[in-house]
Amino acid sequence: MSIDKLKSEIARDFGTPAIVVDMDIIERNIAKLQKLCDTAGVANRPHMKTHKIPALARMQIAAGAQGITCQKLGEAEVMADGGIDDIIVSYNLISAARSGRLSKLLQRLPVKVCADNPVTLQAYAEAGRSADRVVDVLIECDTGRKRAGVETAREALQLAELIKADANLSLKGLLFYPTEQSWPETQTFFNEVKAGLTSLGLTAEIVSTGGTPNLVNLGSLDGATEHRAGTFIFNDRMMMACGAAELGDCALNVYSTVVSRAAPERGILDAGSKTLTSDIGALDGHGLILEHPEARIKGFAEEHGFLDLTACNARPDIGDVVRVIPNHVCVVVNMFDRLIAVRDNKVVEVFDVAARGKLV
Amino acid sequence: MSIDKLKSEIARDFGTPAIVVDMDIIERNIAKLQKLCDTAGVANRPHMKTHKIPALARMQIAAGAQGITCQKLGEAEVMADGGIDDIIVSYNLISAARSGRLSKLLQRLPVKVCADNPVTLQAYAEAGRSADRVVDVLIECDTGRKRAGVETAREALQLAELIKADANLSLKGLLFYPTEQSWPETQTFFNEVKAGLTSLGLTAEIVSTGGTPNLVNLGSLDGATEHRAGTFIFNDRMMMACGAAELGDCALNVYSTVVSRAAPERGILDAGSKTLTSDIGALDGHGLILEHPEARIKGFAEEHGFLDLTACNARPDIGDVVRVIPNHVCVVVNMFDRLIAVRDNKVVEVFDVAARGKLV
Repeated sequence: MSIDKLKSEIARDFGTPAIVVDMDIIERNIAKLQKLCDTAGVANRPHMKTHKIPALARMQIAAGAQGITCQKLGEAEVMADGGIDDIIVSYNLISAARSGRLSKLLQRLPVKVCADNPVTLQAYAEAGRSADRVVDVLIECDTGRKRAGVETAREALQLAELIKADANLSLKGLLFYPTEQSWPETQTFFNEVKAGLTSLGLTAEIVSTGGTPNLVNLGSLDGATEHRAGTFIFNDRMMMACGAAELGDCALNVYSTVVSRAAPERGILDAGSKTLTSDIGALDGHGLILEHPEARIKGFAEEHGFLDLTACNARPDIGDVVRVIPNHVCVVVNMFDRLIAVRDNKVVEVFDVAARGKLV
Repeated sequence: MSIDKLKSEIARDFGTPAIVVDMDIIERNIAKLQKLCDTAGVANRPHMKTHKIPALARMQIAAGAQGITCQKLGEAEVMADGGIDDIIVSYNLISAARSGRLSKLLQRLPVKVCADNPVTLQAYAEAGRSADRVVDVLIECDTGRKRAGVETAREALQLAELIKADANLSLKGLLFYPTEQSWPETQTFFNEVKAGLTSLGLTAEIVSTGGTPNLVNLGSLDGATEHRAGTFIFNDRMMMACGAAELGDCALNVYSTVVSRAAPERGILDAGSKTLTSDIGALDGHGLILEHPEARIKGFAEEHGFLDLTACNARPDIGDVVRVIPNHVCVVVNMFDRLIAVRDNKVVEVFDVAARGKLV
């Protein structure tokens, strides 16, 4: 089917804005990531934060992934409901542990969790005790991103000792999320922790690295056992900008209608900050319009995308449906309740974005 | 009940992040807005884009509002389901009209819609014909915001002629959304359109202005009949920055847990860009933490809020629950499925954010 016919169909059957993914590109991206991991000799544990859909996680596992990564417990609950049984939640889950939800999930599934501090460990120990399960914990380590993660090997080993001393906890591994530049530093950090763990009679069964931009570094941490890449399944403008993807690797388009052209050099899309979000990174503008690559999405109201058409030769007409590659696909998927899947420009499935908005 | 006890309860019963509103402040804000409109001699038509909850719209109407404003048809559908029967959708609803949804809603309710171009009018006429209803249309006029809206009175009158000539359309009024500075310009524009409409034998029954920051200008457009203010029901940091609200007028807090303190001068909140959104306006940082006003939310990952604690005397501990006044409350509510209502620090109700994510 032609893309024009698909655009008409989407507009008629679903309305715009809508998010549409090409299943051929998704399958190619899934296979490519799996091959990259296989070649590097690490297990593939894709991050579902990007798609939030159990069926897509199952496709990743069917293609060879070891399991998946989640960021919040609510996402893990949805994935467990969807039949996924090997899950790391790469987060200090204090609230989910204290509110009893971690304990409930542990009774169904030995979900693996992460910590960078003793307060989180204490909450996990209580969840484990309450569920009558030993909780598998990865220690989150920071090597320059300054997000979560202990900053020194010494602190990592102090947490390892606390885990060792607690009958409700078991050390499962180490979680790294190096910056693209900090892999040598990560190696030093890891070597030091590994030696310390050996002294404590412990081993890190899982040594996890992360990030789609870090696929260029895959395999370069000696001792890594797994990698967590999320965005790669769909890709976006940020991944293009950092060299991790090309235009043909971008699986998701936001279909949007041009609803106003009040002056020759400008227009309005029916996709604003409640659709494309204000995530901008270091990019210019808020998305790439495939039909009008010279157009600039220069700003937003909540439901308005402000188009600067100054540089366009061919300008869109009111009523035109255009396809936008978003800056940051992970946050855009999270704005929608459903994701339309196409193949050869034909709708083949509509997925519920089941883990959308699972913030706890 | 004490605020500390409420925070513990919210964390235990709902988990964080969570959005919590104070019903006493909401009632005060609703009454205050109504009084401002009454005093200015214009009808109050609050915009529900901020709260997206029919029960709150009903409270606004019970306090004297004429009806409500929606931005997308999906929001109007939810509000109609919730018993609201006087609705303006202040948007060029091309997609909703073409996909048949406007026609369906028209069969239940004489929803009023807006247009700034002939393509939109054509889509409305077809929706009206299909529903066997005459569609009430407001002409959207721009006076400097450069969003949607015709830029000249002449264009407004051309649209009025098209409406007059179409048996499926009826001119209901004019929709303005002046910048805070462009009210004199808006008066000139309106006067010219009004004179032209008289020549055409038409009248604008509704002359609508909008915006919470524009409440300072309320009543200053001679001939205005209504005002649309959205954010005022909750308020936020942007409204404080523009002088439309004070801290005590901010009804909504994002409850968030400090989950990491990897170094003395920094920390991590369990609320990132998927919770607080990247909307920043001209503000410094991504929210005001009531317990630590000197702390700066300096950046986001999707589920991490990066805290710079350099300027804090008392710094939060891991596990502390803090309350954040968001930069832009309208987009934050849209990230949550439910809104927790409290009174005297006690949970009194949990609302479904029923129109969340209604993008079409």
